[in-house]
Amino acid sequence: MSNEMYSFIGGSTGPWKIVSINSVTGKAMEPIDRLEIVNEFITSSKAETKWVLHGTTSNLRYTTRQEKEQLDAKSPPLGRKGDTCAALIPIKKSKAWWELAQDERRTIFEAQSEHIKIGLKYLPAIARRLHHSHDLVGEPFDFLTWFEYSPAHSDEFEELVSILRKSPEWKYVDREVDIRLVLDKPSIDPNQPIKVNIKSL
Amino acid sequence: MSNEMYSFIGGSTGPWKIVSINSVTGKAMEPIDRLEIVNEFITSSKAETKWVLHGTTSNLRYTTRQEKEQLDAKSPPLGRKGDTCAALIPIKKSKAWWELAQDERRTIFEAQSEHIKIGLKYLPAIARRLHHSHDLVGEPFDFLTWFEYSPAHSDEFEELVSILRKSPEWKYVDREVDIRLVLDKPSIDPNQPIKVNIKSL
Repeated sequence: MSNEMYSFIGGSTGPWKIVSINSVTGKAMEPIDRLEIVNEFITSSKAETKWVLHGTTSNLRYTTRQEKEQLDAKSPPLGRKGDTCAALIPIKKSKAWWELAQDERRTIFEAQSEHIKIGLKYLPAIARRLHHSHDLVGEPFDFLTWFEYSPAHSDEFEELVSILRKSPEWKYVDREVDIRLVLDKPSIDPNQPIKVNIKSL
Repeated sequence: MSNEMYSFIGGSTGPWKIVSINSVTGKAMEPIDRLEIVNEFITSSKAETKWVLHGTTSNLRYTTRQEKEQLDAKSPPLGRKGDTCAALIPIKKSKAWWELAQDERRTIFEAQSEHIKIGLKYLPAIARRLHHSHDLVGEPFDFLTWFEYSPAHSDEFEELVSILRKSPEWKYVDREVDIRLVLDKPSIDPNQPIKVNIKSL
């Protein structure tokens, strides 16, 4: 996974329409109408922007070679036709988590919580991209996970988040917001970003 | 280790005077006279600044609990009196490194290269702070390691870098620059940053 920066821009524009924003643990986030995701670092200058979260795709932190191969074989791409449901789940873990040694975090993450094993069960139904924010000093969260799935797999998604939230790993979650969205954009070409030609306005 | 952002500002100001800048692997860096280190994100506006590197202190990536305890017991703080020698070694690792799974990287890092075991031998002589840049998309390096030691321990420092450079881990180093410095600042109070009162100028 190469390092790429993403900005999640919450406001009144973008192809993803907000269904709900629930504070699971800790401080809530300001409500928005729509979300836009861009593959660069943006601190929005648009007046209607309520917040921007940043995160980067990065190398694996806990996954072994064997687990990576299982994940790679089953992981679907984002942007599948029909995946009109999405979730953005920003999470901040506690100081206690980050002060653990690598082997202790791995034990909680997989031996105790089966994070990878559980996630594997929901592939390829639930597409997923993890963004890291912990090293981006000043960001309010440590992880931004983006999920995409079809309406037919909604129940499975609810099951997945419910199981993970009961795991020992989640005792180290200090703040979690659960944002649900639906795809709602002009159907000219669902795979192309909408470009506005300023001159033509 | 809490997440703190540092900027390494290369130019003609700062308490650290450059002794040498050597390109060990890959592209060289522009020569500078002095280095200033600040505990925040700065993109310098000073005309004499040649480059700025950014990195954050972060959680441990490979270290086990047992190794952490050994390291904590022997690791000295930065800024010791007499530690007038320093080195800044920015490193970029290859795409192949970052695509490895966690267990594969750990095997190369410690089982094959003994990175922690070797480092431990040079504690408390060589003080050290590691800064991560890999997730700061756009930074030219993945790691910035800052070392401080007394002139009496110079030979040990040469030995340490020489041993690590021969390790299997270093096959994954794509770019490495070795910057050596000496402390050279007004001796009013060596532990206080120099503050200039603009009004008094």
